[in-house]
Order: sequence, then C-alpha cells, then structure tokens
Amino acid sequence: MANGRDIDNHILIAPGSKAPLKGRDPGDDTLFPNRETAEASTAGDAKAIDALQDRLWAERKRALLVVLQGIDTSGKDGTVRGVFNACGPLGVSVTSFGRPSEEELAHDYLWRVHAAAPKKGMIGVFNRSYYEDVLVVKVRKLAPADVVDRRYEQINAFERHLAENGVVLLKFMLHISKDEQRERLQERLDDPAKHWKFNPSDLEDRALWADYHEAYQTMLERCSTAHAPWRVVPADKKWRRNAIIASVVRRTLEDMAPAYPKPDWKPSDFTIA
Amino acid sequence: MANGRDIDNHILIAPGSKAPLKGRDPGDDTLFPNRETAEASTAGDAKAIDALQDRLWAERKRALLVVLQGIDTSGKDGTVRGVFNACGPLGVSVTSFGRPSEEELAHDYLWRVHAAAPKKGMIGVFNRSYYEDVLVVKVRKLAPADVVDRRYEQINAFERHLAENGVVLLKFMLHISKDEQRERLQERLDDPAKHWKFNPSDLEDRALWADYHEAYQTMLERCSTAHAPWRVVPADKKWRRNAIIASVVRRTLEDMAPAYPKPDWKPSDFTIA
Repeated sequence: MANGRDIDNHILIAPGSKAPLKGRDPGDDTLFPNRETAEASTAGDAKAIDALQDRLWAERKRALLVVLQGIDTSGKDGTVRGVFNACGPLGVSVTSFGRPSEEELAHDYLWRVHAAAPKKGMIGVFNRSYYEDVLVVKVRKLAPADVVDRRYEQINAFERHLAENGVVLLKFMLHISKDEQRERLQERLDDPAKHWKFNPSDLEDRALWADYHEAYQTMLERCSTAHAPWRVVPADKKWRRNAIIASVVRRTLEDMAPAYPKPDWKPSDFTIA
Repeated sequence: MANGRDIDNHILIAPGSKAPLKGRDPGDDTLFPNRETAEASTAGDAKAIDALQDRLWAERKRALLVVLQGIDTSGKDGTVRGVFNACGPLGVSVTSFGRPSEEELAHDYLWRVHAAAPKKGMIGVFNRSYYEDVLVVKVRKLAPADVVDRRYEQINAFERHLAENGVVLLKFMLHISKDEQRERLQERLDDPAKHWKFNPSDLEDRALWADYHEAYQTMLERCSTAHAPWRVVPADKKWRRNAIIASVVRRTLEDMAPAYPKPDWKPSDFTIA
C-alpha cells in the first residue's frame, strides 16, 4: 500500500529539477504493485473525494483544479471516469481543450482557460490544457519560438494568481511508453466502436515522439513550482494510474479540509408548518 | 415492471391538457411499486445511458437537454446522482440556475440559458431552469404580470428553436407532497451535515405552496408541447423517481439512436511504427 508521502517521493517534480523525465519508467510498479489492491484503493478514494467535494461545495470558498496532460491515448478520459464518476457531474466540471476556435484565437491563449476555471466549491478537470500552448504549439511550430519561450513564466504567473485566489492546482502528466501507445492506437484500429477515437494525425504526432518528449521535459523543468508542482504518473497500467491520482486528489482535499459552514440560526428556531 | 409506454401513459402531459396536476398523487405507486426492482432498473438504465452517450459524443450531431424542475427538496440533485453518475462528468454537464447575477439581469432571461445549452454530443442537465421565470418570478411578483404572461410562448418558441437544431428536450417536474417536503426540510434541520442546505427562505416558499401549485399548473398547461412535452414524476419516493426518469432518458436516447461515425479510412491503411 502506498501512502501520500511514498507517492509524492515517486512522482512529484521538485521545483528546479533538471531533466525530470530522465530515468522515469512509465511501467514503474513500485507504487500499487497489485491490481486488486489498486482498484480497491481507487474505489475508496473516489467515495472519499465525493464526500469531501460535498463539503467544498457547502463551504463555497475554494476550488480544486485538476490538470490532466499527456499524449494521445495516455488515459485522460479514463482518469476522469475512474477517479471522478463517483463524485458525478454535480460536483465536477470537465473542460476539454481542443484546437482553439476563431474567437479563442482572437484572444490571448489563456483567455479561454481563465473562463473555464472552476467556480468556488467545484472540482474542475482540464482534459488537456494551456500546456498544449508549450507542447503541440512548440513541436508543430504553430507560434514563433520566442513567443512560446515567454509562456512558461506567463503560465507560472497565471497559476500563482489562481493559487492566491483560492484555487488549488494539481497537475498530472500521464506518462506512457511508446510501446504502450502503439498497443492503444492499434486497439482503436481493431475495435469498430473505437474507430471514431482514431485520428490519422495521431500518427504524425507519434512520429514526433522525441520532440514531444523534449517539450514535456522543458515544461516540467520550467513549470513545476511550489504553488503548482507537476506530478509525473507512471501510466502504462490504467489501474495504477487511477489509484495514484485518486490518492493524491483525496489527500489534497483532506489537506484543504473544507468544512460545512456554521449557520447563523439554530435548528430550534424553526417549526415547519 | 414498467415499460416506456406504461410510464408515459402515467406521466406525460398531453399538449392542451387542462389542470394537469389535478388528481396526480406524488406517492402514486403504479409505476415501480417495488423498491428493489426500481433500483435494479435504475442501475441498468444508468449503464445504458452511459453507453448511448458515448455514441452521441462520437456522432457529435445532436444533444440531449434534461430539465429538472421542482420545489425545494424535490430531489433535483439526487436525480443527477442517481441517473447520471454512471455517465460521469465527461459526458454530462450540469447547470444550476440560481438567482441571476447583475450581468445576467442586464440581459433577457433566456440569455444565460442559451449560453448553457449543451454542445453537440453532450447531455446537459438543468438543475432548475428558465421555468423559474414563470414560477418564483410569478409567485413572488418579481416581474409585472403581463411580462410573465408573455413568457410561456417565448419559452415554447425557444424550445422549438432548440428542438429544430438538434437538441432533444426532456422536461421533468419532480412532484412531491407537502408532507414529504416537511420531512425533508426537517431532515435538513436535524442533520448537521445538511444544515447548509437549509435556507430560512425555503419556509417562505413553503407558505406559498398553493401559489406555487397554481404556477406549476399554468406552466404545465401552457408549455407542454409536442416538441417539448412535460412529464410529471411522482417523486415522494426517491428510488421510484430515479427509476422513472432513468427509464425515460434511456428510451429517449435509444430512439435518437446515435451511431458511431463511419471513418473515411480503413484500419488496414495504417501500420503503427
């Protein structure tokens, strides 16, 4: 069994780390070596997250923002299901960031992101995020290099702003191996019910694997801060990924310790006619 | 066991009905008389809804909008949990309509509603809705009578617009008795973890029970249309309410019959390096 400290010893990227992906194995089985235990742990944590979100909502002073970032097939949707379905759509709002619209492109890249920040009392999940603006945008050269280079500090400043205004940030990079991605892409080709998830351009991104790896590395180096650190999750096993993330989310909410507000009335003040 | 036709015979308000609440019993146990069967039915339907939403999203041409309307404690939140948690926050977005903000009041009353309409591929749930603009607004006289009176047809036109543009509407009135509301309000007073849900102004609304009843009656008379009919759900038992709504949602999605899109490529076109 893994407790909170064990997990963070393994996955937290300390601010200022150099080449933090180096030596990290997406199949690392140190945490949650056993599938059954992992699944039981996830189920328990998911229930606890639900109960904690109820208090968060009742309190309505703070929010939790969970950023899920990873390459195609890394398991972002599966994480939402595994960790947040128990909590349900009442307490969790998911925003998926795809190719920006014309109107979004007419603003700065954080404009649409800020608009999607979770309101007080909610858990917001970003399925992909503004980090794409230093990942795909960098790798595919969709913006000049110096523009991208300035974004790391802009993002740090934006996250600091959120953190200072009651939004606790959890950032997870879902780390899978190139072999695991091949299997998952192949599954999308083999299963007709998954064809719609396959996009031929995914293979172009796969061919740029080394460039993405480099871009992720830089992102982790420059945007893991004390107020919003990155965690790199070994994600080749879906059940391990869910167990790790659920455990961190639960512990974070426990540390936030949301409390039911004290009413300014006594139950005995009222008789219900 | 109740099938789709049985259910609608009981709960669908035919367009043009007069005094449709008359004789309706919030405790009516004709549908789903047995709790165990009801809960099994809900669980099965919730799973089916999840699978159907996956296709709806893959297809990305239409949306489902579920409007939950009912007085305080009628079980709107509980319905979301019971019917939509299996589907989770990835496929379902919930919008709760409370007191409008300054900016919302600076626009017409449907402005914020239209902005919250579900995008293609999603299930949207409205927890309360624009119907408050002919309910609390009417009962509490927050707008002139003639302004409220014009809204019924405006709402019908708005819903027709949505329906003609790919949004299927399901409107449920959660119908509870005055006795049942007393019990649920008392529970909020008795259980410290529920104190935050109790609002002393709920008792003011309760004192206006007959006026609300009348306003709901008029809403059902004037806004149950062929393109967006109302259904009145006997909701004194939470498990029966969930079973009825889950069954209608499932059947509606089955009738919509969303299909996985056919890709314009063959799996054999690709080899994953």
